[in-house]
Amino acid sequence: MKNLFEIDEWKIVQNQYEPSKQLQAESIFSIGNGSFGQRANFEEHYSGPTLQGNYLGGIYYPDKTKVGWWKNGYPEYFAKVLNSCNWIGINLKINNEEIDIHQQKVISFHKTLDMKKGILTRNVTLELNNKQQVLMEFTRFCSMANTKLGIVRVNIKPLNFSGKLIAEIYLNGKVYNSDSNYDELFWNHVNSSCENFKGYVSTSTKKTLFHQSTAMECKIECDEKELEIEPKTREKDFFISNELQIEIKEQQTYTITKYVGISTNLNDTDTNVIKESIDIAKKAKAIGFHELLSRHINVWDEIWKKSDIKIVGDKEAQQGIRFNIFQLYQTYTGKNKKLNIGPKGFTGEKYGGATYWDTEAYCLPFYLKTAHSNVARQLLMYRYNQLDKAIENAKKLGFDDGAALYPMVTMNGEECHNEWEITFEEVHRNGAIAFAIYNYVEHTGDYEYVKDYGIYVLIGIAKFWSQRFNWSEDKEAYVMLGVTGPNEYENNVNNNWYTNYIARWCLSYTLDCLKELNLNLINPKEIDNWTKIIQNTYLPKMDNNSIFLQQDGFLDKEQLTVNDLKKEDRPINQNWSWDRILRSIFIKQADVLQGIYFFEDHFSEDEMRDNFEFYEPKTVHESSLSPCIHAILAAKLNKMDIAYELYLRTSRLDLDDYNQEANEGLHITSMAGTWLSVIEGFAGVRVKKQQLYINPKLPNEWKELKFNLVVNNNLLQIKINHNHFTVFNLGEEKITFSHKDKWYDVLAHKVTHITF
Amino acid sequence: MKNLFEIDEWKIVQNQYEPSKQLQAESIFSIGNGSFGQRANFEEHYSGPTLQGNYLGGIYYPDKTKVGWWKNGYPEYFAKVLNSCNWIGINLKINNEEIDIHQQKVISFHKTLDMKKGILTRNVTLELNNKQQVLMEFTRFCSMANTKLGIVRVNIKPLNFSGKLIAEIYLNGKVYNSDSNYDELFWNHVNSSCENFKGYVSTSTKKTLFHQSTAMECKIECDEKELEIEPKTREKDFFISNELQIEIKEQQTYTITKYVGISTNLNDTDTNVIKESIDIAKKAKAIGFHELLSRHINVWDEIWKKSDIKIVGDKEAQQGIRFNIFQLYQTYTGKNKKLNIGPKGFTGEKYGGATYWDTEAYCLPFYLKTAHSNVARQLLMYRYNQLDKAIENAKKLGFDDGAALYPMVTMNGEECHNEWEITFEEVHRNGAIAFAIYNYVEHTGDYEYVKDYGIYVLIGIAKFWSQRFNWSEDKEAYVMLGVTGPNEYENNVNNNWYTNYIARWCLSYTLDCLKELNLNLINPKEIDNWTKIIQNTYLPKMDNNSIFLQQDGFLDKEQLTVNDLKKEDRPINQNWSWDRILRSIFIKQADVLQGIYFFEDHFSEDEMRDNFEFYEPKTVHESSLSPCIHAILAAKLNKMDIAYELYLRTSRLDLDDYNQEANEGLHITSMAGTWLSVIEGFAGVRVKKQQLYINPKLPNEWKELKFNLVVNNNLLQIKINHNHFTVFNLGEEKITFSHKDKWYDVLAHKVTHITF
Repeated sequence: MKNLFEIDEWKIVQNQYEPSKQLQAESIFSIGNGSFGQRANFEEHYSGPTLQGNYLGGIYYPDKTKVGWWKNGYPEYFAKVLNSCNWIGINLKINNEEIDIHQQKVISFHKTLDMKKGILTRNVTLELNNKQQVLMEFTRFCSMANTKLGIVRVNIKPLNFSGKLIAEIYLNGKVYNSDSNYDELFWNHVNSSCENFKGYVSTSTKKTLFHQSTAMECKIECDEKELEIEPKTREKDFFISNELQIEIKEQQTYTITKYVGISTNLNDTDTNVIKESIDIAKKAKAIGFHELLSRHINVWDEIWKKSDIKIVGDKEAQQGIRFNIFQLYQTYTGKNKKLNIGPKGFTGEKYGGATYWDTEAYCLPFYLKTAHSNVARQLLMYRYNQLDKAIENAKKLGFDDGAALYPMVTMNGEECHNEWEITFEEVHRNGAIAFAIYNYVEHTGDYEYVKDYGIYVLIGIAKFWSQRFNWSEDKEAYVMLGVTGPNEYENNVNNNWYTNYIARWCLSYTLDCLKELNLNLINPKEIDNWTKIIQNTYLPKMDNNSIFLQQDGFLDKEQLTVNDLKKEDRPINQNWSWDRILRSIFIKQADVLQGIYFFEDHFSEDEMRDNFEFYEPKTVHESSLSPCIHAILAAKLNKMDIAYELYLRTSRLDLDDYNQEANEGLHITSMAGTWLSVIEGFAGVRVKKQQLYINPKLPNEWKELKFNLVVNNNLLQIKINHNHFTVFNLGEEKITFSHKDKWYDVLAHKVTHITF
Repeated sequence: MKNLFEIDEWKIVQNQYEPSKQLQAESIFSIGNGSFGQRANFEEHYSGPTLQGNYLGGIYYPDKTKVGWWKNGYPEYFAKVLNSCNWIGINLKINNEEIDIHQQKVISFHKTLDMKKGILTRNVTLELNNKQQVLMEFTRFCSMANTKLGIVRVNIKPLNFSGKLIAEIYLNGKVYNSDSNYDELFWNHVNSSCENFKGYVSTSTKKTLFHQSTAMECKIECDEKELEIEPKTREKDFFISNELQIEIKEQQTYTITKYVGISTNLNDTDTNVIKESIDIAKKAKAIGFHELLSRHINVWDEIWKKSDIKIVGDKEAQQGIRFNIFQLYQTYTGKNKKLNIGPKGFTGEKYGGATYWDTEAYCLPFYLKTAHSNVARQLLMYRYNQLDKAIENAKKLGFDDGAALYPMVTMNGEECHNEWEITFEEVHRNGAIAFAIYNYVEHTGDYEYVKDYGIYVLIGIAKFWSQRFNWSEDKEAYVMLGVTGPNEYENNVNNNWYTNYIARWCLSYTLDCLKELNLNLINPKEIDNWTKIIQNTYLPKMDNNSIFLQQDGFLDKEQLTVNDLKKEDRPINQNWSWDRILRSIFIKQADVLQGIYFFEDHFSEDEMRDNFEFYEPKTVHESSLSPCIHAILAAKLNKMDIAYELYLRTSRLDLDDYNQEANEGLHITSMAGTWLSVIEGFAGVRVKKQQLYINPKLPNEWKELKFNLVVNNNLLQIKINHNHFTVFNLGEEKITFSHKDKWYDVLAHKVTHITF
């Protein structure tokens, strides 16, 4: 795979303007602060290829479900992530020539996303008419210190001429989604106003009536002295602007700073969003650019202190893992209980909705191990708060007595995805939600959570499974018909091994919790029924060996491997019709192996190896969620070459655009999987009952691996190289861990060295 | 089942105005002439529930496929049947009170669809303000003698007052489809004009650019003398009208006649549709109402002479079968090679597209046996002419070397349906098309057709099947994965017995034809491959008995029967979510039994009985195509009670609205199945190699059954009662038939009596 951009341990760097990479770059250089986020669109007018995108967390439009054929039980709507008011815009004209990188000659171009500091900068020198050259230095960040604040600054320096600059500093609320039908506008105009050096645009979403206001204050300086000029103000419903006309002199630097407050009523419908946005912008201007920047950097410093992974000896891997950690914390910080982690974060519109099983299966372990347990608890509470809607959802599909089916995609607990084979049948998501509760308790020992909240989620899920299984006279076992497993290249199959396995586990774990917590919430007849299912669950398996079959009939397929595919067939989802994909053997993402990964203890190393060797060659990894799981298993099986290759694929999936879709946005949720593949794979770290198991297997390329880990809210520092590792307990309590079957204690503030 | 309307052997009669039945009535009283057709909407203003619908054969709009998630290979568009220019409209005001049945007091109401003559009449007496009573007698027909002509006449008679009548005779081209998104208009205005007693509206479809013109000429008479008055003309883009103001006198009859010419450029894009429509209307007015009516009735007389079925002793059954025959000939006459038989005919918008496998599996045998063989040949040529597009369609899905997959739904040979599980996977349609060729040859002996055309269709289909099967190492047989069988309550299953069976048969029949016709069109290697598949096709079967399994895994389902369903669950497609339907055992329509019906000779009576008794109790018959097949098999198995019940269900499906959906339009294509269930079921008639087998089994209710049959273009008259039947050969040639293993000859113009 060719790298798209330059390699740097802490930065994403692009040193050349290439329109063909612009859409990918807009995604990859995206910035956000957990509350809102912005693709790396240019501030100034740009006539090249672009996907404009500024997204506000939790704000969506319920697009009417459009399908050729309505089926009973379909959700009312499909939740679209909305492109919101453009807050970065500053159009520039020099001597009446509109600045547009796509039109002028680019003398130099340097774009940098500084991941340590969370800052996007772009320095461009353009040659205008008459060989006039101008240098522009853009700086932008979405403040992590005040998550309703965004800042844009541009320095303009005429290098070899003097002349006239016109800068149009604007807010534009009339923005469209690229995926809207018939250019439908999803926003209504509410109010706007424009004065000298300030103004706001307030809009509200159609149907959902979310209200947002974006307010700006701006400033113009020359060589750091504020200029006193009178802007022309312009206002037209969704659009406001200040137009500045300045005589600029050769080699002097003109600086425009735009302080933007963005407020929404997501958490409190009574919020006076207009006032709040105005206040934020005003206060920000008073505090000033440098102070705001330093506060922002400080927050990132704190995050990195806990969550950085240092890889010595491998710059690509290092850049990859930091990119993933950076994007995750840009997307979700655990501060707002209404938010969750959308698959594209703030980097694109695609998929819609905010919450997928990705959250529980991939992201929760990441936050559990890199942040205070409150963050993971917040994610669990999000599902607990939506239990009623999950019960309602199951009811629509014919289940009763409190059975709960969590939605495949949601913004607020309602299902908002509209493919029957996914919405109705990809029910394994219920399993991941139960597993996340288990995982959380293993890390934190927080049984109170289970007693007060989690058990109700578990019971709803267990009831669903008990009703979804049916007895097969033919097999004399409980079977589960008509499901879609994690491998979405199979639809409506019978007895998906993974789904049957995790369903049985859910029943079992729920019974364990009820017993352990001594709770009488289920009647004995139902417990008997669950027990009967647990004892007689059908799990398809190949005769005479240890291969678990992905589903009934899997062996009827033409037995090929990925090596049999021609280059022009890849990715198959862009080149093959859906029926061909479905009946082929090729696997989109870990399915049986996802189960073996979750329930590692339940299987022997031989079983793990046999299944890995059977399924990995058939897996095309066309889901971003796939290579990380395979990487972890490969590392556990000491297949370091494969593990490393898969790790690179997962960590640099978007950076190197493996799946040819980075233009549409990044794969945010799978980035947590990358982190897991380092920690659980190469570092071999697992947590069971708040204890730690370490069994490192580093790739040859890596000299040293350093990272922090939160266990039971204790912070551990771990450093690993090829024959030695160190655990340093930064927390308040004792942590016990094992390595190669020996147990070690690390007391608080103590260091343990182990050589092997 | 309660009858919706009155029972009459030749008429559909409604003697009461009931708004709650209005939508159903609009469908059931629909009229058409194979070229265009019209729901039984009222001529005058009507504020009650209505679905306006006038449809022109072959005219469609390519609505962009709207699906949440695009899958490779999806068709570009979904073809919508279009509601076209309203040509029947005559609004009436009496003393400034607008006539509206939904608002005034209805003194009497009689609506009649005379199936013998093809005329819709409606006589209504209304009470207006001040107890004024008016009688209105509407007559309407779509001329079968000139299929571009429609006539509306209304007699208005003030019963107890004199006053002022205002009649607004109009054409309105600005009509919408009820299934359009966002009230999108599918028509552009082209031209219109309005003069005294005449005018036209010409419009064209968006995207497809079909051009239509509707022109009218009208006349007003009082007690049969033409009135000389000056109408007010009005014209506003899509709308033209003549407004007549007349002083009307008590007990005199005022007659408005509207002669309408409707022309399209479907067959020839150079047609001057405006001129043509104007000419037709003008000429019609000159010929006059009574002469036009009599020409129209003559055509129906000719049709009934050949195709009537007379059932003595059972009025419901008699009305049912005539309704079905009438609707079929209203929909398709075989005169236009661009047309086919849409599932709703001219009675509703639903489903879209014009051509389904229904044509070959159900309609073709009907036309083959009730009309000159040219009609059936026309239907076969339709597919032959679209072979290139079927090859292209298969190519999109990854098949090559001339493999052909006919579309599931089409207007012009391109696929225009957008559910992956149907479009890509309900591939058995290819089998029905091959079977229709076989059926045609059996009836007609027209091997020339096969040699010149049919063989190429067969080869394309055979190639598709040979590529769609794959070898299963596990089963050591050829399997077919990921299909949807005729029972659409299963999607994406493996080894649908019916599909595998008919696919194998297609390979076999194609090889037979190549051999018989001595054609060298396929290379020996390919022939070997086909032969290998034929010899090793996997056909799922239950162990130790003769049940063919609908698909792999069928026995894993909860083994229930329709008797286990609660009343409120029926129909399940309106009450259950799709996943629940899919994993249930319930069968929408004949699937294994469809195969046994097609290939009756291949199975023993025991096999037929065992499978019927296994599947019939599991079948909910929620497809209109289902009960007829079951009825035929039941009759063959001498299960006369079931056969009769299923027959009534099929023949009165829409008349009694069994599936609660007659409001959306009628089930036109399944009506051919009703005909088959009488002829092949109760009359026990089969044709093999142009010979006839008769083995009648009449229901007890029926005293006598009389019908005509076309075999090899010879017309036979057959009369059956319970111990006797008569065959009268009206044709030119000898026909040989067998009854109870004895062979009989019927010479032309001779009668044969058989008593048993």
